[in-house]
Amino acid sequence: MSTEQEPTTPQDELSQVPSTQQPEAEDHAAALDELQDRWRRALADLDNLRKRHAKELERERAAERARTAAAWLPILDNLDLALAHAGSDPSAVLEGVKAVRDQAVDVMRRLGYPRYEETGVPFDPTRHEVVVAADDPDAEPNTVVQVVRPGYGEGENQLRPAAVMVSKRQE
Amino acid sequence: MSTEQEPTTPQDELSQVPSTQQPEAEDHAAALDELQDRWRRALADLDNLRKRHAKELERERAAERARTAAAWLPILDNLDLALAHAGSDPSAVLEGVKAVRDQAVDVMRRLGYPRYEETGVPFDPTRHEVVVAADDPDAEPNTVVQVVRPGYGEGENQLRPAAVMVSKRQE
Repeated sequence: MSTEQEPTTPQDELSQVPSTQQPEAEDHAAALDELQDRWRRALADLDNLRKRHAKELERERAAERARTAAAWLPILDNLDLALAHAGSDPSAVLEGVKAVRDQAVDVMRRLGYPRYEETGVPFDPTRHEVVVAADDPDAEPNTVVQVVRPGYGEGENQLRPAAVMVSKRQE
Repeated sequence: MSTEQEPTTPQDELSQVPSTQQPEAEDHAAALDELQDRWRRALADLDNLRKRHAKELERERAAERARTAAAWLPILDNLDLALAHAGSDPSAVLEGVKAVRDQAVDVMRRLGYPRYEETGVPFDPTRHEVVVAADDPDAEPNTVVQVVRPGYGEGENQLRPAAVMVSKRQE
Protein backbone atom coordinates (compact mmCIF):
# COMPACT_ATOMS: atom_id res chain seq x y z
CA MET A 1 0.00 0.00 0.00
CA SER A 2 1.82 3.09 -1.23
CA THR A 3 1.61 6.11 1.06
CA GLU A 4 3.26 8.52 -1.36
CA GLN A 5 0.64 8.05 -4.07
CA GLU A 6 -1.79 10.98 -4.23
CA PRO A 7 -5.36 9.73 -3.93
CA THR A 8 -7.54 10.78 -6.85
CA THR A 9 -10.68 12.80 -6.20
CA PRO A 10 -13.93 11.03 -5.26
CA GLN A 11 -15.42 12.17 -8.58
CA ASP A 12 -12.63 10.53 -10.60
CA GLU A 13 -12.72 7.23 -8.81
CA LEU A 14 -16.47 6.92 -8.35
CA SER A 15 -16.98 7.09 -12.08
CA GLN A 16 -14.85 3.94 -12.37
CA VAL A 17 -16.71 2.04 -9.68
CA PRO A 18 -19.07 -0.54 -11.21
CA SER A 19 -22.70 0.58 -11.05
CA THR A 20 -24.71 -0.55 -8.03
CA GLN A 21 -27.53 -1.49 -10.46
CA GLN A 22 -25.61 -4.53 -11.83
CA PRO A 23 -27.82 -7.59 -11.41
CA GLU A 24 -25.21 -10.32 -10.85
CA ALA A 25 -24.20 -11.07 -7.27
CA GLU A 26 -20.63 -11.82 -8.39
CA ASP A 27 -20.20 -8.35 -9.85
CA HIS A 28 -21.59 -6.87 -6.66
CA ALA A 29 -19.10 -8.77 -4.56
CA ALA A 30 -16.22 -7.64 -6.78
CA ALA A 31 -17.36 -4.01 -6.63
CA LEU A 32 -17.68 -4.21 -2.87
CA ASP A 33 -14.18 -5.68 -2.57
CA GLU A 34 -12.73 -2.95 -4.71
CA LEU A 35 -14.46 -0.19 -2.76
CA GLN A 36 -13.36 -1.68 0.54
CA ASP A 37 -9.82 -1.68 -0.76
CA ARG A 38 -10.03 1.97 -1.82
CA TRP A 39 -11.57 3.00 1.47
CA ARG A 40 -8.91 1.14 3.44
CA ARG A 41 -6.25 2.86 1.37
CA ALA A 42 -7.76 6.29 2.05
CA LEU A 43 -7.76 5.59 5.81
CA ALA A 44 -4.14 4.44 5.62
CA ASP A 45 -3.23 7.62 3.71
CA LEU A 46 -4.95 9.65 6.41
CA ASP A 47 -2.92 7.93 9.08
CA ASN A 48 0.35 8.38 7.22
CA LEU A 49 -0.40 12.02 6.50
CA ARG A 50 -0.89 12.67 10.22
CA LYS A 51 2.44 11.08 11.09
CA ARG A 52 4.23 12.93 8.30
CA HIS A 53 2.74 16.24 9.44
CA ALA A 54 3.88 15.76 13.02
CA LYS A 55 7.45 15.21 11.81
CA GLU A 56 7.28 18.10 9.36
CA LEU A 57 6.02 20.43 12.10
CA GLU A 58 8.97 19.55 14.35
CA ARG A 59 11.42 20.03 11.49
CA GLU A 60 9.95 23.40 10.51
CA ARG A 61 9.98 24.63 14.09
CA ALA A 62 13.69 23.79 14.40
CA ALA A 63 14.43 25.46 11.05
CA GLU A 64 12.56 28.63 12.04
CA ARG A 65 14.37 28.73 15.39
CA ALA A 66 17.74 28.37 13.62
CA ARG A 67 16.88 31.07 11.04
CA THR A 68 15.80 33.49 13.76
CA ALA A 69 18.76 32.81 16.04
CA ALA A 70 21.22 33.08 13.12
CA ALA A 71 20.02 36.65 12.50
CA TRP A 72 21.64 37.51 15.86
CA LEU A 73 25.10 36.13 15.06
CA PRO A 74 26.38 39.49 13.71
CA ILE A 75 25.26 41.18 16.94
CA LEU A 76 27.26 38.72 19.00
CA ASP A 77 30.29 39.06 16.70
CA ASN A 78 30.18 42.84 16.92
CA LEU A 79 29.86 42.80 20.71
CA ASP A 80 32.96 40.58 20.72
CA LEU A 81 34.75 43.04 18.41
CA ALA A 82 33.77 46.09 20.47
CA LEU A 83 35.15 44.40 23.57
CA ALA A 84 38.33 43.24 21.81
CA HIS A 85 39.15 46.86 20.95
CA ALA A 86 38.11 48.22 24.34
CA GLY A 87 41.64 48.76 25.66
CA SER A 88 42.58 51.36 23.09
CA ASP A 89 39.88 54.04 23.25
CA PRO A 90 36.83 54.06 25.59
CA SER A 91 34.90 56.56 23.46
CA ALA A 92 35.40 54.35 20.42
CA VAL A 93 33.83 51.49 22.40
CA LEU A 94 30.80 53.68 23.01
CA GLU A 95 30.41 54.36 19.30
CA GLY A 96 30.80 50.67 18.60
CA VAL A 97 28.11 49.74 21.13
CA LYS A 98 25.71 52.33 19.69
CA ALA A 99 26.21 50.80 16.27
CA VAL A 100 25.54 47.30 17.66
CA ARG A 101 22.36 48.50 19.36
CA ASP A 102 21.11 50.06 16.11
CA GLN A 103 21.99 46.87 14.29
CA ALA A 104 20.05 44.81 16.85
CA VAL A 105 17.01 47.07 16.41
CA ASP A 106 17.30 46.45 12.68
CA VAL A 107 17.48 42.67 13.19
CA MET A 108 14.20 42.88 15.11
CA ARG A 109 12.66 44.94 12.31
CA ARG A 110 13.74 42.46 9.64
CA LEU A 111 12.31 39.59 11.69
CA GLY A 112 8.96 41.42 11.62
CA TYR A 113 9.10 43.24 14.98
CA PRO A 114 9.80 46.94 14.36
CA ARG A 115 10.64 48.99 17.45
CA TYR A 116 8.39 51.84 18.47
CA GLU A 117 9.10 54.49 21.07
CA GLU A 118 7.22 57.57 19.94
CA THR A 119 6.16 60.21 22.42
CA GLY A 120 3.41 62.78 21.91
CA VAL A 121 1.10 60.14 20.45
CA PRO A 122 -2.30 59.32 21.96
CA PHE A 123 -2.31 56.43 24.40
CA ASP A 124 -3.26 53.20 22.58
CA PRO A 125 -3.98 50.19 24.84
CA THR A 126 -3.00 47.76 22.05
CA ARG A 127 0.55 49.21 21.81
CA HIS A 128 1.14 50.82 25.20
CA GLU A 129 1.33 49.59 28.75
CA VAL A 130 1.01 52.42 31.26
CA VAL A 131 3.62 52.22 34.02
CA VAL A 132 2.74 55.60 35.46
CA ALA A 133 0.13 58.31 34.91
CA ALA A 134 1.84 61.70 35.04
CA ASP A 135 0.54 65.13 36.00
CA ASP A 136 1.79 67.14 33.07
CA PRO A 137 -0.05 70.44 32.61
CA ASP A 138 1.75 71.11 29.31
CA ALA A 139 0.74 67.81 27.68
CA GLU A 140 -2.52 66.89 26.00
CA PRO A 141 -4.43 64.55 28.31
CA ASN A 142 -4.08 60.82 27.66
CA THR A 143 -0.89 61.24 25.67
CA VAL A 144 2.41 59.31 25.82
CA VAL A 145 4.85 61.74 27.48
CA GLN A 146 7.74 59.30 27.96
CA VAL A 147 8.69 55.81 26.81
CA VAL A 148 10.25 53.84 29.65
CA ARG A 149 10.89 50.73 27.53
CA PRO A 150 10.34 50.51 23.75
CA GLY A 151 7.80 48.14 22.24
CA TYR A 152 8.51 45.64 19.46
CA GLY A 153 6.10 44.46 16.76
CA GLU A 154 2.44 45.21 16.33
CA GLY A 155 -0.89 43.45 16.12
CA GLU A 156 -0.48 39.69 15.78
CA ASN A 157 3.29 40.14 15.60
CA GLN A 158 3.67 42.07 18.83
CA LEU A 159 6.53 40.84 20.99
CA ARG A 160 5.65 43.29 23.75
CA PRO A 161 3.90 46.65 24.12
CA ALA A 162 5.87 49.80 24.93
CA ALA A 163 5.99 50.68 28.64
CA VAL A 164 5.00 54.36 28.85
CA MET A 165 4.21 57.35 31.03
CA VAL A 166 0.86 58.83 30.06
CA SER A 167 -0.50 62.30 30.94
CA LYS A 168 -3.60 62.14 33.14
CA ARG A 169 -7.03 62.66 31.66
CA GLN A 170 -8.43 66.08 32.49
CA GLU A 171 -10.92 65.93 35.39
CA MET B 1 -19.57 16.01 6.45
CA SER B 2 -17.71 16.53 9.68
CA THR B 3 -13.96 17.01 9.41
CA GLU B 4 -13.34 16.96 13.14
CA GLN B 5 -14.67 13.45 13.60
CA GLU B 6 -11.92 10.89 13.96
CA PRO B 7 -12.37 8.12 11.42
CA THR B 8 -12.49 4.72 13.03
CA THR B 9 -9.96 2.12 12.01
CA PRO B 10 -10.55 -0.04 8.95
CA GLN B 11 -10.81 -3.06 11.24
CA ASP B 12 -13.62 -1.45 13.27
CA GLU B 13 -15.69 -0.33 10.37
CA LEU B 14 -15.17 -3.33 8.12
CA SER B 15 -16.67 -5.57 10.76
CA GLN B 16 -19.87 -3.55 10.48
CA VAL B 17 -20.00 -3.69 6.68
CA PRO B 18 -22.59 -6.20 5.51
CA SER B 19 -20.97 -9.38 4.31
CA THR B 20 -20.23 -9.61 0.60
CA GLN B 21 -21.66 -13.13 0.72
CA GLN B 22 -25.28 -11.86 1.15
CA PRO B 23 -27.37 -13.24 -1.70
CA GLU B 24 -29.90 -10.42 -2.18
CA ALA B 25 -29.08 -7.72 -4.76
CA GLU B 26 -30.79 -5.07 -2.61
CA ASP B 27 -28.51 -5.74 0.31
CA HIS B 28 -25.51 -5.55 -1.97
CA ALA B 29 -26.60 -2.19 -3.31
CA ALA B 30 -27.06 -0.87 0.22
CA ALA B 31 -23.66 -2.14 1.30
CA LEU B 32 -22.05 -0.59 -1.74
CA ASP B 33 -23.72 2.75 -1.07
CA GLU B 34 -22.56 2.74 2.50
CA LEU B 35 -19.00 1.89 1.57
CA GLN B 36 -18.95 4.60 -1.09
CA ASP B 37 -20.08 7.06 1.54
CA ARG B 38 -17.34 6.01 3.95
CA TRP B 39 -14.71 6.17 1.28
CA ARG B 40 -15.83 9.63 0.16
CA ARG B 41 -15.73 10.77 3.77
CA ALA B 42 -12.18 9.47 4.20
CA LEU B 43 -11.06 11.37 1.08
CA ALA B 44 -12.73 14.54 2.34
CA ASP B 45 -10.99 14.09 5.71
CA LEU B 46 -7.70 13.74 3.85
CA ASP B 47 -8.31 16.98 1.98
CA ASN B 48 -9.30 18.87 5.12
CA LEU B 49 -6.31 17.54 7.00
CA ARG B 50 -3.99 18.91 4.32
CA LYS B 51 -5.56 22.38 4.49
CA ARG B 52 -5.56 22.42 8.27
CA HIS B 53 -1.93 21.37 8.35
CA ALA B 54 -0.80 24.15 5.99
CA LYS B 55 -2.41 26.71 8.31
CA GLU B 56 -0.99 25.06 11.41
CA LEU B 57 2.50 25.06 9.90
CA GLU B 58 2.32 28.81 9.23
CA ARG B 59 1.03 29.49 12.74
CA GLU B 60 3.73 27.39 14.38
CA ARG B 61 6.47 29.02 12.33
CA ALA B 62 5.30 32.48 13.44
CA ALA B 63 5.08 31.32 17.06
CA GLU B 64 8.58 29.85 16.98
CA ARG B 65 9.97 33.03 15.39
CA ALA B 66 8.31 35.14 18.11
CA ARG B 67 9.57 32.86 20.91
CA THR B 68 13.13 32.97 19.56
CA ALA B 69 13.15 36.73 18.92
CA ALA B 70 11.64 37.44 22.36
CA ALA B 71 14.65 35.74 23.97
CA TRP B 72 16.72 38.67 22.63
CA LEU B 73 14.61 41.44 24.18
CA PRO B 74 16.71 41.56 27.39
CA ILE B 75 19.86 41.96 25.27
CA LEU B 76 18.37 44.96 23.49
CA ASP B 77 17.13 46.45 26.76
CA ASN B 78 20.54 46.09 28.36
CA LEU B 79 22.33 47.63 25.39
CA ASP B 80 19.92 50.57 25.77
CA LEU B 81 20.69 50.76 29.47
CA ALA B 82 24.46 50.57 28.95
CA LEU B 83 24.25 53.45 26.48
CA ALA B 84 21.90 55.48 28.72
CA HIS B 85 24.50 55.39 31.50
CA ALA B 86 27.45 56.00 29.14
CA GLY B 87 27.97 59.64 30.06
CA SER B 88 28.87 58.97 33.67
CA ASP B 89 31.70 56.43 33.57
CA PRO B 90 33.27 54.89 30.41
CA SER B 91 34.80 51.95 32.28
CA ALA B 92 31.36 51.12 33.72
CA VAL B 93 30.06 51.00 30.14
CA LEU B 94 32.71 48.45 29.32
CA GLU B 95 31.64 46.26 32.25
CA GLY B 96 28.03 46.62 31.15
CA VAL B 97 28.83 45.58 27.59
CA LYS B 98 30.79 42.55 28.79
CA ALA B 99 27.78 41.49 30.84
CA VAL B 100 25.49 41.94 27.81
CA ARG B 101 27.81 39.86 25.63
CA ASP B 102 27.85 37.05 28.22
CA GLN B 103 24.07 37.27 28.45
CA ALA B 104 23.80 37.02 24.65
CA VAL B 105 26.02 33.91 24.65
CA ASP B 106 23.69 32.45 27.27
CA VAL B 107 20.60 33.24 25.15
CA MET B 108 22.19 31.28 22.31
CA ARG B 109 22.92 28.39 24.67
CA ARG B 110 19.35 28.32 25.96
CA LEU B 111 18.02 28.35 22.39
CA GLY B 112 20.09 25.21 21.75
CA TYR B 113 23.23 26.72 20.21
CA PRO B 114 26.06 26.66 22.77
CA ARG B 115 29.15 28.67 21.85
CA TYR B 116 32.46 26.91 21.39
CA GLU B 117 35.87 28.48 21.04
CA GLU B 118 38.32 25.99 22.49
CA THR B 119 41.95 25.99 21.41
CA GLY B 120 44.38 23.08 21.75
CA VAL B 121 41.74 20.62 20.51
CA PRO B 122 42.24 18.47 17.40
CA PHE B 123 40.86 19.93 14.19
CA ASP B 124 37.32 18.56 13.55
CA PRO B 125 35.87 19.32 10.11
CA THR B 126 32.30 19.10 11.47
CA ARG B 127 32.93 21.92 13.98
CA HIS B 128 35.81 23.91 12.51
CA GLU B 129 36.36 25.90 9.37
CA VAL B 130 40.05 26.54 8.70
CA VAL B 131 40.76 30.16 7.77
CA VAL B 132 44.51 29.72 7.89
CA ALA B 133 47.02 26.91 8.41
CA ALA B 134 49.76 28.11 10.73
CA ASP B 135 53.38 27.07 11.05
CA ASP B 136 53.59 26.55 14.79
CA PRO B 137 56.51 24.36 15.83
CA ASP B 138 55.30 24.30 19.45
CA ALA B 139 51.83 22.99 18.62
CA GLU B 140 50.75 19.45 17.91
CA PRO B 141 50.09 19.13 14.19
CA ASN B 142 46.48 19.51 13.02
CA THR B 143 45.43 21.29 16.20
CA VAL B 144 43.32 24.44 16.70
CA VAL B 145 45.84 27.10 17.76
CA GLN B 146 43.50 30.12 17.58
CA VAL B 147 39.75 30.75 17.22
CA VAL B 148 39.12 33.68 14.89
CA ARG B 149 35.32 33.53 15.28
CA PRO B 150 33.45 31.27 17.73
CA GLY B 151 31.07 28.58 16.53
CA TYR B 152 27.49 28.11 17.75
CA GLY B 153 25.57 24.86 18.04
CA GLU B 154 26.59 21.37 17.04
CA GLY B 155 25.48 18.55 14.79
CA GLU B 156 21.96 19.12 13.45
CA ASN B 157 21.69 22.28 15.55
CA GLN B 158 24.84 23.96 14.25
CA LEU B 159 24.32 27.63 13.38
CA ARG B 160 27.88 27.92 12.10
CA PRO B 161 31.26 26.23 12.61
CA ALA B 162 34.08 28.02 14.43
CA ALA B 163 36.55 29.78 12.14
CA VAL B 164 40.01 28.67 13.29
CA MET B 165 43.75 28.70 12.72
CA VAL B 166 45.12 25.17 12.59
CA SER B 167 48.72 24.05 12.96
CA LYS B 168 50.08 22.40 9.81
CA ARG B 169 50.35 18.65 9.56
CA GLN B 170 53.92 17.45 9.90
CA GLU B 171 55.48 16.72 6.48
